[in-house]
Amino acid sequence: MALTLYWGSGSPFSWRVLLALEHKRLPYESHRLHFDKQEHQSPQMLKLNPRGRLPVLKDGDYVVFESVAILYYLDVKYPQAPIFGTTPEEAGVIMRVICEFQAYAEPALLKIVNAIFADQVTDSIEELSDSMHVAAREARTIEGRLSKEQWIVGANYSATDMVIFPWIQLLRRALSKPAAAELGARFLPMERNYPALGRWVRRIESLSGYERTYPPHWRDTQGSQAPAAET
Amino acid sequence: MALTLYWGSGSPFSWRVLLALEHKRLPYESHRLHFDKQEHQSPQMLKLNPRGRLPVLKDGDYVVFESVAILYYLDVKYPQAPIFGTTPEEAGVIMRVICEFQAYAEPALLKIVNAIFADQVTDSIEELSDSMHVAAREARTIEGRLSKEQWIVGANYSATDMVIFPWIQLLRRALSKPAAAELGARFLPMERNYPALGRWVRRIESLSGYERTYPPHWRDTQGSQAPAAET
Repeated sequence: MALTLYWGSGSPFSWRVLLALEHKRLPYESHRLHFDKQEHQSPQMLKLNPRGRLPVLKDGDYVVFESVAILYYLDVKYPQAPIFGTTPEEAGVIMRVICEFQAYAEPALLKIVNAIFADQVTDSIEELSDSMHVAAREARTIEGRLSKEQWIVGANYSATDMVIFPWIQLLRRALSKPAAAELGARFLPMERNYPALGRWVRRIESLSGYERTYPPHWRDTQGSQAPAAET
Repeated sequence: MALTLYWGSGSPFSWRVLLALEHKRLPYESHRLHFDKQEHQSPQMLKLNPRGRLPVLKDGDYVVFESVAILYYLDVKYPQAPIFGTTPEEAGVIMRVICEFQAYAEPALLKIVNAIFADQVTDSIEELSDSMHVAAREARTIEGRLSKEQWIVGANYSATDMVIFPWIQLLRRALSKPAAAELGARFLPMERNYPALGRWVRRIESLSGYERTYPPHWRDTQGSQAPAAET
């Protein structure tokens, strides 16, 4: 088996790659590493990625990391089914919405999720409300796109959906914790506040192979593992 | 003329796209907008990019923004000369180093440059020293790559060089201001502290078309325009 993925449970960055591998129906050897045991920082892993972050993909002797770069590599190497579009125009929008998400939504989401899982909501409620405001505004833009189309960019499931979906799931999980009740009031229940986003989540959840991508420790626990060390 | 670029002088994000257009020898209509006159936030520009950021590229009726997405679109649409590699493996490394730069270097660089141009170095010297430490560490990694190869990824000038180069120039310009003397002591002169990086800068400066990409207001003044509103 040529492809090996090193990943962490609950890491939105890892989840993206699992979604892409399943979508492309590529066989892969799956190595789940445990953040709490620092397995992602072992000497063996640091040799693959000196930053000690996950996910890391090996394809034979070739190594690539940074989740968007892995998605991109997979798409150039294994073009079926395409996840960066089929025309230059579509490719541009897919990459544009990914860049926008990373620049404008991800920093706010990281703050919210890290604070909730570290039980620090009360300490920084004002900053978190600002972050929630930003996240809600970005979610409304995506809601607008999804109210017109089945997928975030155009007619097909793409890298954009794979980049954003794990964050939506992680955000919902974080906001459903009792300590986050106030913070989550404007977002949850998502089905009511963001109905198109809710339908899109269910659409992805029903994709073939989805179950294999679902964070295993989310099934086991109402755990509180923070994604601080994850990429 | 099909291609129109809206850009701002001194914006590292805009500069990337100018470098790509020149490298691909694509004819383009150049619209320099003035940040100080808020031209990037005009109703006409907000129709193209609701975030009111630059650069924005129009190709006929098609509009794309976010600098990395523009580079990507240009490469898919106009494959000669390729800037995202010629093999999947090269494509993966090019995108990986871009993602790493955005995730680990750019936030620190933004803080440093914004503080210097806003004359706020003294107020936040401790945080800025930390940012300089991060920037210097990332620069050393790039120095390592450039001491083995002519370009940051492999044998050819690529999107990675175009993404990083404008930031290096902007950082040098910022650090050469008197107020930044202490901050810049470990970085400047670059030719001594980062000799391979220095050779790489001169290599890009000698490329055909480079002069057309150089920020016009840098020629006119020792100006202090901050890139806060730029993307």
